[in-house]
Amino acid sequence: MSFIAIPQIMHFAEPLLLSSGESLEQYHLTYETYGELNNNKDNAVLICHALNASHHVAGVYAGDGSDNVGWWDSMIGPNKPVDTNKFFVIGVNNLGSCFGSTGPMHVNPKTQKVWGADFPVLTVEDWVHSQERLISALGINRLTAVMGGSLGGMQALSWSIEFPDRVAHAVVIASAPNLNAENIAFNEVARRAIVNDPDFHGGHFYEYGVVPKRGLKIARMVGHITYLSDDVMNSKFGRSLKNEEIQFSTQNVEFQIESYLRYQGEKFSEYFDANTYLLITRALDYFDPAKAHNNNLTRALEKTKANFLVVSFKTDWRFSPTRSREIVKALIDNKRAVTYAEIDAPHGHDAFLLEDERYISLVRAYFEGISKKITWVGEYE
Amino acid sequence: MSFIAIPQIMHFAEPLLLSSGESLEQYHLTYETYGELNNNKDNAVLICHALNASHHVAGVYAGDGSDNVGWWDSMIGPNKPVDTNKFFVIGVNNLGSCFGSTGPMHVNPKTQKVWGADFPVLTVEDWVHSQERLISALGINRLTAVMGGSLGGMQALSWSIEFPDRVAHAVVIASAPNLNAENIAFNEVARRAIVNDPDFHGGHFYEYGVVPKRGLKIARMVGHITYLSDDVMNSKFGRSLKNEEIQFSTQNVEFQIESYLRYQGEKFSEYFDANTYLLITRALDYFDPAKAHNNNLTRALEKTKANFLVVSFKTDWRFSPTRSREIVKALIDNKRAVTYAEIDAPHGHDAFLLEDERYISLVRAYFEGISKKITWVGEYE
Repeated sequence: MSFIAIPQIMHFAEPLLLSSGESLEQYHLTYETYGELNNNKDNAVLICHALNASHHVAGVYAGDGSDNVGWWDSMIGPNKPVDTNKFFVIGVNNLGSCFGSTGPMHVNPKTQKVWGADFPVLTVEDWVHSQERLISALGINRLTAVMGGSLGGMQALSWSIEFPDRVAHAVVIASAPNLNAENIAFNEVARRAIVNDPDFHGGHFYEYGVVPKRGLKIARMVGHITYLSDDVMNSKFGRSLKNEEIQFSTQNVEFQIESYLRYQGEKFSEYFDANTYLLITRALDYFDPAKAHNNNLTRALEKTKANFLVVSFKTDWRFSPTRSREIVKALIDNKRAVTYAEIDAPHGHDAFLLEDERYISLVRAYFEGISKKITWVGEYE
Repeated sequence: MSFIAIPQIMHFAEPLLLSSGESLEQYHLTYETYGELNNNKDNAVLICHALNASHHVAGVYAGDGSDNVGWWDSMIGPNKPVDTNKFFVIGVNNLGSCFGSTGPMHVNPKTQKVWGADFPVLTVEDWVHSQERLISALGINRLTAVMGGSLGGMQALSWSIEFPDRVAHAVVIASAPNLNAENIAFNEVARRAIVNDPDFHGGHFYEYGVVPKRGLKIARMVGHITYLSDDVMNSKFGRSLKNEEIQFSTQNVEFQIESYLRYQGEKFSEYFDANTYLLITRALDYFDPAKAHNNNLTRALEKTKANFLVVSFKTDWRFSPTRSREIVKALIDNKRAVTYAEIDAPHGHDAFLLEDERYISLVRAYFEGISKKITWVGEYE
């Protein structure tokens, strides 16, 4: 039995200046918290989400019999690796996402029309800045840790650069200092599939009462392929047929892997927003802290003060260990305290969401270390 | 200056029984030949093509100022690795393709309507059987070699199984004994993009005077990503921007890789047939000679009598060296003569079409060996 999570909303009336030069006049963030903020307000852990996740990081929702479990419930909760008996954990939905925070499906107060494709294009840094206001509003000056996987890891890294004095530990999992050409290419395929769907209507489909489901399905299918390792796909699906024999059809499902991907695509197209998909993949593409430093990542990480836990997974070909090692190398160049682990999990990029024992115990040990340090200064426990 | 190639057409009036159980009552194949068939008719080399190629393997077309060079012109021609001064080379367009041979855009003689999506679903074996009739009609009993890359390599392998007495050498390049789950998955994404394009009209778009270009574009973009290696993509495109600065747009091109993929998709959608794409990717999915032998590839290759040249490329993640080694292992188990080379080319799957010097000289040496053997039995030169 997991605990009951309660989503909350925080409104921000001050304009947020974005990387693009545009401003968001006002916005709200949907978030959840688990555990209790201690008196010194120094036991807070911020969890940043990846492409299709949300503020609902752990626990379940009450009342409606929903079994909607948080996406990182294996990692966060009472007595879990990030132990909510000790830590005050915050899950936040990113700006531009479709799970509650201000996004393209909301009304632009200036025009009184739904934003749609006119919602400002965002960067990882914009998210971090918007999250910083939430943290401040919660009375937290310094986060004990900021933690995320994939795009969430990019946010954790960005926090350590943007607000070096406000992050004690950054936990960067299955991430990269930027996307390589292949990753941008996969994102672009997904975006083109959405944009070219006649139901997209230039990003203003809300007005037409339709959803570009065809495009979203393709986007999700492509994504899913890249989240899994070749090995896991072969062991899970291989060449297994849906029917006993080949049906000789180009349009019906023949192989189990097709069935799986179609199902994932279908499910996704029923809940995910097309404009959000474009915005979030673009933020992924843009993230590149070294760019402003002549592509020198070491220079880019010079300002950081946090301690780091960096984790990669050997079979992750989307955010490969090589990319994590670039981060580790740049941190070590700067003499930062870094713990790095390369987990030999078979699941590819998806591994960061799964319960590999070595991975789970590593995070547990790291957070136990954090809480012990808190104990040493006599402020907790 | 390359030589002039002239496409020809051969009609077959006898029904062709297909793997699906259906029959094609009649069909024609478009083909080209280069060099001269010798008196003993034992210097013929059949070239099998991959997904989007054709019978136009080498040379250029005359008259219209076209610079349409054959897709394997680097490999085939006078004094080239497959030397048309010595060998009689045949390029043939596959059944169901869209470059001249009978396909879904032609009229079904039974119904007097365009086949469209009702064109029979084909297998690699069906292609080999249809090609065998062409070879026989040209008066050739035994091919000196059958050669192909990728799907073409599957056909070469299939020839050695289906007609063991009629193939002296099989040259199997950048191929596999079957597709793995990931490859099927990528094919399925491409197919769904096409089938879900409203302009596909269930495969009968010809009647509507439209082409499912959106779907074809996505299919080609996905394909292109998988043909290139990660390294080549990074060195060729990396994170280079199209404009000097980021434009903050989710729909316009930001990165050079996006521009490249969109261009490739656009070009492809202008000449390739959507039903052909479905048929050919399905034939790829289905190919699995070991299946009928309890997934034992050694057993599947027991009947072969040819000598083999198997070539793979280290950076090819779509048809990786591991898969070629499976073929080599099964051939060696059967005590077949196999030459195997793993070329350390950086270009990924595309390498089989490119002019890597080690690769080109290897094929040259192999075919010199073949021609010398022909000399030894006194029948040539």
